Amino acid sequence: MRFYLDCIPCIMRYAVSTVRLATDNPEKQGNTIRQVLQELAKIDYENYAPAVMRTIEKIIKQECHCADPYKDMKKQFNQGMLELYPYLEKAVQESPNPFEQAIRYAASANIIDFGIINNLTLELAKKTLAENARMPLRFNTAEELAEDVQKAQKILYLADNSGEIVVDKLLLSRLPREKITFAVKGSPICNDATMEDAEMAGITKLVRVIDTGYALPGTIPEFCSPEFQQEFAEADLVIAKGQGNFETLSELKNKKIYFIFKAKCNVVTSYLNCDLNDIILKKSSV
Amino acid sequence: MRFYLDCIPCIMRYAVSTVRLATDNPEKQGNTIRQVLQELAKIDYENYAPAVMRTIEKIIKQECHCADPYKDMKKQFNQGMLELYPYLEKAVQESPNPFEQAIRYAASANIIDFGIINNLTLELAKKTLAENARMPLRFNTAEELAEDVQKAQKILYLADNSGEIVVDKLLLSRLPREKITFAVKGSPICNDATMEDAEMAGITKLVRVIDTGYALPGTIPEFCSPEFQQEFAEADLVIAKGQGNFETLSELKNKKIYFIFKAKCNVVTSYLNCDLNDIILKKSSV
Repeated sequence: MRFYLDCIPCIMRYAVSTVRLATDNPEKQGNTIRQVLQELAKIDYENYAPAVMRTIEKIIKQECHCADPYKDMKKQFNQGMLELYPYLEKAVQESPNPFEQAIRYAASANIIDFGIINNLTLELAKKTLAENARMPLRFNTAEELAEDVQKAQKILYLADNSGEIVVDKLLLSRLPREKITFAVKGSPICNDATMEDAEMAGITKLVRVIDTGYALPGTIPEFCSPEFQQEFAEADLVIAKGQGNFETLSELKNKKIYFIFKAKCNVVTSYLNCDLNDIILKKSSV
Repeated sequence: MRFYLDCIPCIMRYAVSTVRLATDNPEKQGNTIRQVLQELAKIDYENYAPAVMRTIEKIIKQECHCADPYKDMKKQFNQGMLELYPYLEKAVQESPNPFEQAIRYAASANIIDFGIINNLTLELAKKTLAENARMPLRFNTAEELAEDVQKAQKILYLADNSGEIVVDKLLLSRLPREKITFAVKGSPICNDATMEDAEMAGITKLVRVIDTGYALPGTIPEFCSPEFQQEFAEADLVIAKGQGNFETLSELKNKKIYFIFKAKCNVVTSYLNCDLNDIILKKSSV
């Protein structure tokens, strides 16, 4: 799905939150936001919103001399979800359908998205996981994913955010691990998970982990490293986590992709014809 | 209160809503929004947010050849509130303190603000009036206003939005009408009331009505007509309706002003140290 006019206020909210994390200097904040607006005025409406977010964040990082505004928050959310993990694992084990329950939590954990949710707290993340624990998955079923996993030889699992990746372990440990390659972002962007987060979350001990070679809150394969592009080409099943991956990959018609995420804005709910806060398991039309 | 960085996403949301009302042509919408962003990049953070909104709306009106994007909505909300008016008047009459109850409704009706509230419906406006019917007024009391009204010779009542002005009649009819001058905007801006709305609402039959000679969703006296400036200077009490009037007049220390509005955004609640959705009656510090 491409850019909507409604993405602009949301991107500006993201820019304001990010610039405040990047510097405490109000003058620098104001001047940086002026530059962001100047850049946004050149907008190509055929672009993807996550690609625009990348450009904006690049300006903020350069102007404020801050390599990773979300560094502390990423650690905080990894830590918080690691503490919660044993309780979630127990809830999955005690569920009538553990595989489905693991998908449900993996989708719900996509609430940990600083690109869209303002003033996110660990409390809100935990509350969302609890509230979503019995919500129905929209569009496709856990059984359909299980069948396609069975048939697949190589599965590429595209990670989304820090904290969220800890909850992904519930699902990863119920998939055939030897088939899985888990891909994080090439360098810091928003609160997206990088190799450092995968290590902190304990995913490197569970499955093979690579990175995309690129920093974007979503995945545009042609911008990624040759190594990642090869992995993407060879995978006969992709599990793409997060709304950003849905935004950038939903138009790809020649690849079997299961999108797992939480619908967090009106642009996505209108596009999908679903409700705000729905948890989504959606297979792409190959 | 001056501009905050948080005003930018909100102004962009307003710009997107307004451009959609001004034209159905998606290309024109997109190009206009690019121009709005370009203008916003030149932002002076010492300005008032309502003044920036004026500049933005001017660009939209010019580019889309639309003199009044909110024309239909203004009529709809005037009409809706006129239908509700007899029920509100009865509720005020039956209240233990009719004057206070009239202020409460006048403040609550400030929800009808397309500058801040997205996807506003007549249903939401009615629901808000019902829900706020027993809410406490924040900061000052109806008795304090009543005392100052008693002492005043000339009262200037600054109107805010269409629809909302119908509800203002509950309060206007409980004030000494001969002392009152009611001021609407000089020409259309957002959903602010103009002379046409004052006539439709029946206010011209109730009290003397003038206009500010200027179009801005708030009041900056030095930009207004000499006639309005004289009225403003001569008034020994000003009743200023709406959040926009609070934003533009709250720094004026030499004038007795009672602000009546509903706190609708986090910038205002932080400034005032109140809660979102509070109904406000606040006297300026002379």
